[in-house]
Amino acid sequence: MTMKLYWAPKSRAFRAAWMLEESGAPYERVLVDIRAGQQSTPEFARINPMQKVPALTDGEATVAESAAICAYVAERVPGAGLAPPMDSPLRGRYWHLLFFAASCIEGAFLEKFANVSPPGMSAGWGSLDRVMDALEGFVTPGPWVLGEQFTAADVMIGADLYYGIELFGLFERRPAFAAYLERITKRPAFQRALAFDEAG
Amino acid sequence: MTMKLYWAPKSRAFRAAWMLEESGAPYERVLVDIRAGQQSTPEFARINPMQKVPALTDGEATVAESAAICAYVAERVPGAGLAPPMDSPLRGRYWHLLFFAASCIEGAFLEKFANVSPPGMSAGWGSLDRVMDALEGFVTPGPWVLGEQFTAADVMIGADLYYGIELFGLFERRPAFAAYLERITKRPAFQRALAFDEAG
Repeated sequence: MTMKLYWAPKSRAFRAAWMLEESGAPYERVLVDIRAGQQSTPEFARINPMQKVPALTDGEATVAESAAICAYVAERVPGAGLAPPMDSPLRGRYWHLLFFAASCIEGAFLEKFANVSPPGMSAGWGSLDRVMDALEGFVTPGPWVLGEQFTAADVMIGADLYYGIELFGLFERRPAFAAYLERITKRPAFQRALAFDEAG
Repeated sequence: MTMKLYWAPKSRAFRAAWMLEESGAPYERVLVDIRAGQQSTPEFARINPMQKVPALTDGEATVAESAAICAYVAERVPGAGLAPPMDSPLRGRYWHLLFFAASCIEGAFLEKFANVSPPGMSAGWGSLDRVMDALEGFVTPGPWVLGEQFTAADVMIGADLYYGIELFGLFERRPAFAAYLERITKRPAFQRALAFDEAG
């Protein structure tokens, strides 16, 4: 059964598309024209009631939320080595960083994009500055966020840094981020995903 | 090696504490006095550079972000049955709902708590209303969000609905949420976690 990725260019679906390219598994891309409102059709809402891309179908299974798709594909295609082995002490950091990307970087992105400063300790992401400082620690010394093994956590964090710095200019281009992005953007799977993302 | 949970009462650490109670595994709770700033000590920042509770240590492994701790504990204690089996078609929905809680419910919570309305399509969580509608679908018909099996996704979603409705009164008490909360609050592990959460 071929996985189907419901996606739109220049959206959070880039993370899932790049992850599938990294996995090497066959999949089909289905363009959802979000400017024309295709994500709000009853057909698509059955796949993702949030009416957002990306979403993935895989036989009877459906997945939405980009980080969830990354976690799912990593375990669906174990031979691709995109997650630490189950008995590795890095499993803790793997889950930490996938959820850090989904919750904290996403929050920092919104804080900057929408110019929102949540009061006191109320935000799960703390603050933009704290997220950027933590992120600098996570990508240093590299090459990847878990060290030698490139994983789904790099897809989330790498895509977020690429979009946040290169595309939207929202995040500060710190030297550690620039060095990590240089490694990220050299990956053939990243380049393939970027090519069809830019072609729309 | 006993797992150590760094926590504070009436915080996002409740999710992780309840998850550990559900797992049945031995663990030690370490109180972090967040009102006294103990989360910002260099010792704690080494465990979680975001300086937030909860965080978990397990031998050499460290984990932060409450949903990451739930995912980690589910795979660390497989006998507790808190995740669908690896070959189950429900794995997709499992990851979807864990990340939906971490990203979308968290976003909706912030929107209501801080009175923030992000512009257009910029927020990952869409909008408060869309999150509540999706959530109503996820907890219906139950008994749990994946059907018959109670999983870590119920810990995240159940804790969020309990805090969001019962403690903070931020989310609408829809009949489907009230019915789900009735099932949640009957669980002995929930009651144990709530007892020490309330005792502080």
